[in-house]
Amino acid sequence: MKPFFKVATVKQAVAQIREFAPVASEPVSLVQATGRILAEDIISTIDVPDFARSTMDGYAVQAASTFGASEQNPALFVLKESVSMGQAPDILIFPSTAARIPTGGMMPRGSDSVVMVEHTELVDDDTVEVYRSTAPGQHVVGVGEDIRRGDAVLTRGTKIRPQEAGLLAALGVHEARVFKRPRIGIVSTGDEIVAPDETPAPGQIRDINTYALSGLILQTGAEPVLLGLVRDDLDALTQKCAQALDACDMLLISGGSSVGARDYTVQALSSLKDARIVFHGVSISPGKPTIIGTAAGKPVFGLPGNAVSAMVVFMILVKPAIEQIGGLDPAGQRNLRIPARLSRNLSSAQGRTDYVRVRLIPKTDGLWAEPILGKSGLIHTMVKADGLVEIDSHTEGLDQGALTEVILI
Amino acid sequence: MKPFFKVATVKQAVAQIREFAPVASEPVSLVQATGRILAEDIISTIDVPDFARSTMDGYAVQAASTFGASEQNPALFVLKESVSMGQAPDILIFPSTAARIPTGGMMPRGSDSVVMVEHTELVDDDTVEVYRSTAPGQHVVGVGEDIRRGDAVLTRGTKIRPQEAGLLAALGVHEARVFKRPRIGIVSTGDEIVAPDETPAPGQIRDINTYALSGLILQTGAEPVLLGLVRDDLDALTQKCAQALDACDMLLISGGSSVGARDYTVQALSSLKDARIVFHGVSISPGKPTIIGTAAGKPVFGLPGNAVSAMVVFMILVKPAIEQIGGLDPAGQRNLRIPARLSRNLSSAQGRTDYVRVRLIPKTDGLWAEPILGKSGLIHTMVKADGLVEIDSHTEGLDQGALTEVILI
Repeated sequence: MKPFFKVATVKQAVAQIREFAPVASEPVSLVQATGRILAEDIISTIDVPDFARSTMDGYAVQAASTFGASEQNPALFVLKESVSMGQAPDILIFPSTAARIPTGGMMPRGSDSVVMVEHTELVDDDTVEVYRSTAPGQHVVGVGEDIRRGDAVLTRGTKIRPQEAGLLAALGVHEARVFKRPRIGIVSTGDEIVAPDETPAPGQIRDINTYALSGLILQTGAEPVLLGLVRDDLDALTQKCAQALDACDMLLISGGSSVGARDYTVQALSSLKDARIVFHGVSISPGKPTIIGTAAGKPVFGLPGNAVSAMVVFMILVKPAIEQIGGLDPAGQRNLRIPARLSRNLSSAQGRTDYVRVRLIPKTDGLWAEPILGKSGLIHTMVKADGLVEIDSHTEGLDQGALTEVILI
Repeated sequence: MKPFFKVATVKQAVAQIREFAPVASEPVSLVQATGRILAEDIISTIDVPDFARSTMDGYAVQAASTFGASEQNPALFVLKESVSMGQAPDILIFPSTAARIPTGGMMPRGSDSVVMVEHTELVDDDTVEVYRSTAPGQHVVGVGEDIRRGDAVLTRGTKIRPQEAGLLAALGVHEARVFKRPRIGIVSTGDEIVAPDETPAPGQIRDINTYALSGLILQTGAEPVLLGLVRDDLDALTQKCAQALDACDMLLISGGSSVGARDYTVQALSSLKDARIVFHGVSISPGKPTIIGTAAGKPVFGLPGNAVSAMVVFMILVKPAIEQIGGLDPAGQRNLRIPARLSRNLSSAQGRTDYVRVRLIPKTDGLWAEPILGKSGLIHTMVKADGLVEIDSHTEGLDQGALTEVILI
């Protein structure tokens, strides 16, 4: 029986993707944490810093003793012993007493501010002149001023950047719980496909998709699992997909662009455990013959065999799906589209979301997006491109000079 | 003898960085190539495709036989045997003969175009009606139309994105020569620093820089080499730096923000083999106490101990230096700054390049950059930030509403 073929809009496809469940979590040491997604909320159990610190080389004083000080009328201070880095000073600061303190040093009891060394002069071993007044708290970071005990500093689903890794280090979180890197299986199908180290016979071409897709998977922070080439053979494809689902968290089947091969992909997917083909076709160009479904509780994508189409569908649909199962909170994601003006008119069919490859050209009046000419299926057009311009399904085209947002690729 | 202290502008520092020599190269398999920098020019030795291919499911024909065809006046074609995927068809197409062909199939001799299956109807097993005329070359990718034999397709110094990996696969380059990942040593210094899994005594703080810097190094495509903590002790620091230079391609010494410790960093660096301190101080804020030099022919950076300053200096100076020794061609780099309007006035001292942390706020009239309040040295300000706004050294400040470019962090 022929399955029911439902074509999705890009919006419907993305809504479906948001329902995919996340993978499990694992602990990871802080040096490996950058790029991973937090699987726990982080609440600080300490104040950072947990002692008042100087932010300058200078003298710790009571600010009140400096009021009115100037070059003409310096304030005199009696020197106590100096503060040493990394040690709690055993000093008490009174009015008109001062202690030499390095940047990062712990403020001695009784002091409330630091006079920069540039605004002082040593008179003798026991006396320093101060030429400027300082205010309470000046050149000091107070207890908990960076992070307060009990602060909810990071939430589950946050991507750990270097600064978040640094923050975790400051909190003493030397191991963080993160989502596992999703394992994404790639099966490349087609009777015409040979591996890159083979010489294609007439009518054959080398496998591009395995390499382009594994690169995209790596860029998305996931782990590509290369499952190799499969002929257009239903049994072989079904068996490979079943194996793949055991080993992976998501499955990409690329190829099957011809009508017969497309049917194989649907049939192979349909015969898997708990298979559900959600969408057969997406109104996206390039990339219409895309299949979205689930099997054994895991997302499966049938991607076009053409490398350019497969890459565009990856960027628009598979990447959000990997981020979804990888635990990334979509609310925390930043808009990375670059505004640029179109260098020429672009036409588009209504009812279809188009992605046009463009080169970014910096000019004196800002960035311009120049559409790449050439037939849409050619890989060199992706190599020449810096990004994609989206033309939404309600638009018939974009005019020269129109302000667009470029998705970097 | 006190060394001559030369403070650099950001521009002078970047010019110096452009003189650093690249690391050696190594072969890498295509699945590992994404993110690496090509160390060779790639000239295609083949045409891609090396046979004319159909881009549609349909019928291979001679276009001239379809001229004038319409729904009312279909053109009749005699069917030859079908073209199979991955095989050279042993068929000759004459006027008014056609062969069924799948997307990606090899065009049979004598044919020059493809009629889409949607514009045809089978009359019987041997005859097909065509309802639309096609033009020579339509729905066909010709020999070498994607890449021509002899084309210089990629140049040394190009960063391999997924599409470049795909292109190399298409060319049969299953192993590419790339620059080695630069090994970047990190030494964190300071009597006040303890590891994140230790409990700091009063006056001590946890090491943030090792973790923030190693994350930044990973993001830049290089390999962090963690060399651990060193007390403010000249002998220990000198010995650690000498070890590090043996094991690494570049050395980052973070810490030594206090005057005495800064001197240790300079002295330790100066005592290394072929040491040359090029700049002692950069007119950048935050990050002024930055040291740039070379030793044993390798770049060395003394970075501020404050984590925020160290991260800003990394992004503005160390990242380009890593890319330089990593072989990246600066001409091939894209401008990844995001235009946004400032939400409030920012003041700045002339003669110094300022980097202000901002949050990006999407509004109906475009993106706004909102400066993050709070003392500049606090790590939480980096966590709240999406990027940095540069205020160049000739500018006293930027007005609310001014269009700025945000460096994403």
